[in-house]
Amino acid sequence: MSLRLNSSDPDFAAQFDRLVNARRDGDADVRRDVSAIIDAVRARGDAALEEYTTRFDDHSLSSKGWQIDAAEMQAAFGGLDAELREALELAASRIRSYHEAQLPQDRDYTDETGVRLGARWSAVDAAGLYVPGGRAAYPSSLLMNAIPAKVAGVQRLVVVTPTPKSEVNPLVLAAAHLAGVDEVWRIGGAQAIAALAYGTDKISPVDVVTGPGNAWVAEAKRQLYGVVGIDMVAGPSEIVVVADGDNDPNWIAADLLSQAEHDPTSQSILFTDDAAFANHVEDCLNVLVGKLATHKVARESWDSNGAIITVGSLDEAMPLVNRLAAEHLELAVSDPDALFAKVRHAGSVFLGRHTPEAIGDYVAGPNHVLPTGRRARFSSGLSVLDFMKRTSFIGLDESSLGKLGPATAALAHAEGLPAHALSVEKRLVK
Amino acid sequence: MSLRLNSSDPDFAAQFDRLVNARRDGDADVRRDVSAIIDAVRARGDAALEEYTTRFDDHSLSSKGWQIDAAEMQAAFGGLDAELREALELAASRIRSYHEAQLPQDRDYTDETGVRLGARWSAVDAAGLYVPGGRAAYPSSLLMNAIPAKVAGVQRLVVVTPTPKSEVNPLVLAAAHLAGVDEVWRIGGAQAIAALAYGTDKISPVDVVTGPGNAWVAEAKRQLYGVVGIDMVAGPSEIVVVADGDNDPNWIAADLLSQAEHDPTSQSILFTDDAAFANHVEDCLNVLVGKLATHKVARESWDSNGAIITVGSLDEAMPLVNRLAAEHLELAVSDPDALFAKVRHAGSVFLGRHTPEAIGDYVAGPNHVLPTGRRARFSSGLSVLDFMKRTSFIGLDESSLGKLGPATAALAHAEGLPAHALSVEKRLVK
Repeated sequence: MSLRLNSSDPDFAAQFDRLVNARRDGDADVRRDVSAIIDAVRARGDAALEEYTTRFDDHSLSSKGWQIDAAEMQAAFGGLDAELREALELAASRIRSYHEAQLPQDRDYTDETGVRLGARWSAVDAAGLYVPGGRAAYPSSLLMNAIPAKVAGVQRLVVVTPTPKSEVNPLVLAAAHLAGVDEVWRIGGAQAIAALAYGTDKISPVDVVTGPGNAWVAEAKRQLYGVVGIDMVAGPSEIVVVADGDNDPNWIAADLLSQAEHDPTSQSILFTDDAAFANHVEDCLNVLVGKLATHKVARESWDSNGAIITVGSLDEAMPLVNRLAAEHLELAVSDPDALFAKVRHAGSVFLGRHTPEAIGDYVAGPNHVLPTGRRARFSSGLSVLDFMKRTSFIGLDESSLGKLGPATAALAHAEGLPAHALSVEKRLVK
Repeated sequence: MSLRLNSSDPDFAAQFDRLVNARRDGDADVRRDVSAIIDAVRARGDAALEEYTTRFDDHSLSSKGWQIDAAEMQAAFGGLDAELREALELAASRIRSYHEAQLPQDRDYTDETGVRLGARWSAVDAAGLYVPGGRAAYPSSLLMNAIPAKVAGVQRLVVVTPTPKSEVNPLVLAAAHLAGVDEVWRIGGAQAIAALAYGTDKISPVDVVTGPGNAWVAEAKRQLYGVVGIDMVAGPSEIVVVADGDNDPNWIAADLLSQAEHDPTSQSILFTDDAAFANHVEDCLNVLVGKLATHKVARESWDSNGAIITVGSLDEAMPLVNRLAAEHLELAVSDPDALFAKVRHAGSVFLGRHTPEAIGDYVAGPNHVLPTGRRARFSSGLSVLDFMKRTSFIGLDESSLGKLGPATAALAHAEGLPAHALSVEKRLVK
């Protein structure tokens, strides 16, 4: 049974606080395990990778192979049926266009003091993408991670993916071919992240590691943050739907279930100003969920983490929506812009009645790798910027140094840094 | 005695590898201590802050006060001598201008399929800045952290700073007044970072924490990454100078020392194609260092971590410079643009003979918070983007959903996510 709240309940504030602050992350203490795995890969390189892969994935790297080669990826792509190939191509093309428009502008100008200033963006040399094995191996995730890297200009794009019992997901290989991935290694878990960060004899290190993974993968990324760049730490996924009573309750029920079916820890929350509509949505949901092949997961997620919150008006919902700072936010109303103007924190917003969140998962163009667990308060979805870095630059001549030098020397002396002052003063006195 | 290498030495490659991979970070195992401090602040809040502050800073929060109020900051600013006040104002004004030009553009457009797409940037609600106590308390650092946050639009800007024996640095308070800091709390160390991340009864939590600190502060930021946003993990500072023989060796010697005087773990490296010039620089450095109030630190840094590398040509130096991916890079030549075109990885570049690095520390405008320890391979200096986040948005109508819906449903079915498909199919069939 999902949670039902009404903003006019006397204890609503306390109940909503509990909803906002509830932790859905698994609490397993994986820190120590991950730390040991990282140390082993750093110390023993490929030998450690072989041992962990045999143990965890039941795959022998030395006898069954370390890499999946380009021909195998191409064959997987060639083997797709036409509808699926065209769908993947449409997705790739739209993701590429959206991310190309994200490419940042360099700056190079001389200000009124005669100081040349600027910033130059460039891609990292190499990026590593984690692709989970099993249920969570999504070709769409591969596209969403690989295409921004390629658009950024990354020259070497490396995929690591566990292949339990040597099996691989052909859809993922097809997507890797389409996205232009350069290397695919049959390794997974924390050991794969460690190999990407430090490198081994076989695998050259990369500069940035992105992509979803289980708790061990996430913890390895967290521990190696600073050795390599990473995308934001990801937790369980969530959707908030703000809907008035004029929606088809079946549509909204399907939207809530589309989040719930991901994982038992996923969360779907509906805000509505119409108590009768809230009941209709729940009734529809209870019918629809039974028909899903994913019904066990969806049911468990909805019962454990789902919520329907009735509010006096949708405007009144918006401060609550901002506190949740959800990964996905649907505004299923006729005039979504009026509500969107009040959104301060959200990963991605889906405007109007005809924009189900699933469109953003696949073909719309914006990235589906988005901040979870209220992290939209301070972080953004994956973009080309995650695969680039900015070098600032400064150029002075004798004249402009004459103008900025004395203030610099005064501040350096005040901070107790005489060599800083000296480096300027030597150039001022001729 | 600093290191001397020549690129024509037979074992140069191995020697340079050692230089690139040397770790200068302190190896103290602070992880466990920091973890315990974070847990204590999370569990016991202000009481834990009081205990740690009494123990580590010899300052009693309950009797001597928790905060420094606005009047005290204003008084510090008013008490500055005119030269210093004007220097701080010049710095603040130039930093503000440079960072205002960094503000990102929103996007909102409808593509040829009739899909509305875009991205909207907004500031985080609150940011916390760590300001070290003692030797490393620099007013310039306060400006470099606070001004980008204010330019980004952050409404609540909180400084935490340890005040050992209740003493405060009036220059830092003056800078806080100038930058418009909203709150200053007399707490430091890992406990201050934990308080900013989780909040206590007295201190409301923030969304992003930036600013330099010792190993405990850096480790606390690392451990709390994901609970809050942080700037890049920072290590010891470094400069690489690429200089031909036409430079005044005293200028270059002062530049190398300006990095060395920061800390014994700092690193200064000179590349030159002129062996005689290399000797002149070292001679000048040995004279200059003795005159510095900071000579002990500068001497220790130069002897332990300094290096002069003679190369056949400056062009030949550039791949080596890129491997070092230094925080600061001076190109002290007549035509710096030719070399700059070959720079792939550097935090900030100082162009030409009249641009000592110290100019960038104070008044040039670009941020002096820059990636250290080879992290310029994948990260950038502090900017307004560190205090902002991007919300993407998608809007479809019946017509555009008709065009993108079938591909979405096909991919959702292929990924085994039927509710995703259903959320689209329900809207397609009328």
